[in-house]
Amino acid sequence: MKPNKNCRRILGIDPGLADTGWGILDDSAGKIQYIAHGTIKTKADVPRAKRLCFILHSIRLIIEKYKPAEAAIETLYFGRNVTSAIPVAEARGVISACLAENGIPLCELTPNAIKKGVTGVAGAGKKQVQEMVRLILALEEIPKPDHAADALGAAICLLNIVSPVTFEKKAKNPKR
Amino acid sequence: MKPNKNCRRILGIDPGLADTGWGILDDSAGKIQYIAHGTIKTKADVPRAKRLCFILHSIRLIIEKYKPAEAAIETLYFGRNVTSAIPVAEARGVISACLAENGIPLCELTPNAIKKGVTGVAGAGKKQVQEMVRLILALEEIPKPDHAADALGAAICLLNIVSPVTFEKKAKNPKR
Repeated sequence: MKPNKNCRRILGIDPGLADTGWGILDDSAGKIQYIAHGTIKTKADVPRAKRLCFILHSIRLIIEKYKPAEAAIETLYFGRNVTSAIPVAEARGVISACLAENGIPLCELTPNAIKKGVTGVAGAGKKQVQEMVRLILALEEIPKPDHAADALGAAICLLNIVSPVTFEKKAKNPKR
Repeated sequence: MKPNKNCRRILGIDPGLADTGWGILDDSAGKIQYIAHGTIKTKADVPRAKRLCFILHSIRLIIEKYKPAEAAIETLYFGRNVTSAIPVAEARGVISACLAENGIPLCELTPNAIKKGVTGVAGAGKKQVQEMVRLILALEEIPKPDHAADALGAAICLLNIVSPVTFEKKAKNPKR
């Protein structure tokens, strides 16, 4: 499942404690090719630390199998709902540390940047983004579940709006 | 640095992206003994993922060196400040996953439970808690920095208020 020599392989991630979506794309000279997608599910009745450990192991397996060169993740934005933000942030922390441990640079993209990067419109709706993901990847149906489609959206956005050079600069000077 | 056969060794942790405090205690037949404390510091100009990876490596080294049997961490409570909660939650996620990977059960304690477990009073002030940590561990000075003293406080609380049996029950039926 290794990428071809001349292609740029991207791992897109939509993190969550119960459900982490992921998607893999290749970019060969501007042509985007779908490779795989899926979700990492953990059960609510399992201790939190074990759920996070399962996410860590699963991300390691995905990295080992697909050998992505770069990764894209949505930045966290939670208006007032801290309760739902905390488990997502915990999962995101685990995934970020695992990517860094494997030397894979991670690009954080705002929800609006992803919408614009996929559809061309910053204010696009969730369904519009998912339909564009389907069209760009030439898939018969919108990838399921939503978290996996969102992960593929982040990966497409990284290819569409961020050049490798800009990306490296960003990684060296993060805003936070 | 391994614990004696008949003692219960606890790792207390006060997580943070910039500064994670940790402390190690032994409990031999009801007698609490101080073993070590310290902090894991990461710089703000380093990419977030690399900082989280450094925390992951550091926790692994502490586990390897001190071989704790159990760990205690403060639950996250952030009134309205989501911005400061997110980096703490990311660090906490990494630490929790690392403990689970090493088979170390993690007990989450509320700030009030720690205050009560250390001083006997749920409404005790931060300085009171730190002074009690110093007295209980028979140290000449309050452990520095504050994060390390708070981590030792969580470890003392686990020994004082949570019996191993209660703790196991808690780990199997977490509230979230």
